[in-house]
Amino acid sequence: MATYVFGHTNPDSDSIVGAIALSYLKNQLGEDTIPTRQGDISPETEFILKKFGYEAPQLKTSYAGENVYLIDFSDIAQSPKDIKEATILGIVDHHKLGDLTTDTPLECWIRPIGCSNTVVKEMFDHYHIEIPEKLAGMMMCAILSDTVIFKSPTCTKVDTKAVKELSKICGIEDYKALAMEMFIAKSAVDGASARNLNTRDYKAFDMNGTRVGINQLEMVDISVLTPRIDELFADMQKMKEEEGLHTVLVLLTDIMKEGSQLLCISDDASKVENAFKTKLENNQAWLDGVLSRKKQVIPFLQPQF
Amino acid sequence: MATYVFGHTNPDSDSIVGAIALSYLKNQLGEDTIPTRQGDISPETEFILKKFGYEAPQLKTSYAGENVYLIDFSDIAQSPKDIKEATILGIVDHHKLGDLTTDTPLECWIRPIGCSNTVVKEMFDHYHIEIPEKLAGMMMCAILSDTVIFKSPTCTKVDTKAVKELSKICGIEDYKALAMEMFIAKSAVDGASARNLNTRDYKAFDMNGTRVGINQLEMVDISVLTPRIDELFADMQKMKEEEGLHTVLVLLTDIMKEGSQLLCISDDASKVENAFKTKLENNQAWLDGVLSRKKQVIPFLQPQF
Repeated sequence: MATYVFGHTNPDSDSIVGAIALSYLKNQLGEDTIPTRQGDISPETEFILKKFGYEAPQLKTSYAGENVYLIDFSDIAQSPKDIKEATILGIVDHHKLGDLTTDTPLECWIRPIGCSNTVVKEMFDHYHIEIPEKLAGMMMCAILSDTVIFKSPTCTKVDTKAVKELSKICGIEDYKALAMEMFIAKSAVDGASARNLNTRDYKAFDMNGTRVGINQLEMVDISVLTPRIDELFADMQKMKEEEGLHTVLVLLTDIMKEGSQLLCISDDASKVENAFKTKLENNQAWLDGVLSRKKQVIPFLQPQF
Repeated sequence: MATYVFGHTNPDSDSIVGAIALSYLKNQLGEDTIPTRQGDISPETEFILKKFGYEAPQLKTSYAGENVYLIDFSDIAQSPKDIKEATILGIVDHHKLGDLTTDTPLECWIRPIGCSNTVVKEMFDHYHIEIPEKLAGMMMCAILSDTVIFKSPTCTKVDTKAVKELSKICGIEDYKALAMEMFIAKSAVDGASARNLNTRDYKAFDMNGTRVGINQLEMVDISVLTPRIDELFADMQKMKEEEGLHTVLVLLTDIMKEGSQLLCISDDASKVENAFKTKLENNQAWLDGVLSRKKQVIPFLQPQF
């Protein structure tokens, strides 16, 4: 019986590439695993897969009775609905410890660093398994994406070292140029619906019993979205009602200006204002220097609830 | 501000030695940590500390506002009461994933192997930090204890390899002889009260909403306890009432005969009989081959509730 390896719902590049990389490693170690995904591929991930000639993992949303490895999450909210009927053999992650539990011993490789693929790189080194050239390229892109080309406060020396080693393996010296290409692909908004934009990197959080949805769009230049702000707000209002959320936030993160335009629809916007020590104007605020949802948004918002 | 490193309530040798070893490693890596313990030292741990000339870590049961590393557990039930007011920087463990969660990213080194000290050994290797001779001896003893000198089904190749490497570092070639000495120290029951015996390696479990307490006494020869069985049962009944437990089990594990005499006080003993496919006589049964609570008891008992 094969074991499935997958990342969180609404997968980002770290989740998709991480599933492929971890599955490859486990198979080299003699296990029989298959990488899968819980949702659609983002434009950024599509760019990475195409660049290195990989197929997207198969879509699979139900895992009852299966053995699984999880990558890039440890929360029930980001799991398949039947995760409690699966056997979790391991978790590879770089987030806070979530509310998943197991009935049997497992392996967890969780580190407070910039990217799950950096943890997978550590695992390859630990087991002395060689990383194939094109897989190394994908892992490098995932790390450059999660760390916003090393600009994110989540980025550590371990991440930059991993990128440098992976760049040697895949033979791409100018990885910053490749990363810019990738972020330009990620920034493509032509033809995308407001809902598509509002859910590209959307995660729902349970903040001490209150549901808060937060989306982040990382772009090379967020001004291309200025004509569409009203449309985004209208859709955020709909999402709030559909999902029964207290607050919906969208972070338009400008990776060149190094900050985020915050869009906020909330039952009590003062909580958001207090969290970021700012005043909203037309439900918006510029958060200078804010690039990381995990490190610069969640920890300040959570105590407000 | 120092960071505290400690194991579970009612600490065993793995928890005590693991706290000392992990604290030493973290300090070598430039952190400022102090090993502590949540409860009394067992006779086995005392033997190990004395043998290698270490002091017991200081007793500390409150950690509000502190940074902490946890070793050998990830359950709230085995944590200090104010664990939610502490910041968990990391968890090193070899059990099932418990219900502790964090607000911030952390490091987790959790492996499905025989002993937390084997995981700490892996960490020393990962960081290329030398293990002092006497610390290596203590870590070796902790692994030999948790794996019942490699006889436990929880024991893996990683554990045996770690013991062999640690035995070279500490210069003790005949580690099996030392382990027997240690288990003889652990088997000392003279002068111990029934309550002391019933709680030497006692853990309370929440089994789908039902509270079950399980103690395990690993001994070189369990027949020395035969004259005291009635006394143990009387105290188990008291523990059941005091703690509002559905079931209290004591496993008298004979490491030479490689099996456990099960003592059972329960509101519904049929659950225990079904779990182990056995019939209790005078509230007792011999479970042949059963050495591991974690692998041979919990996974069979839990589905009965």
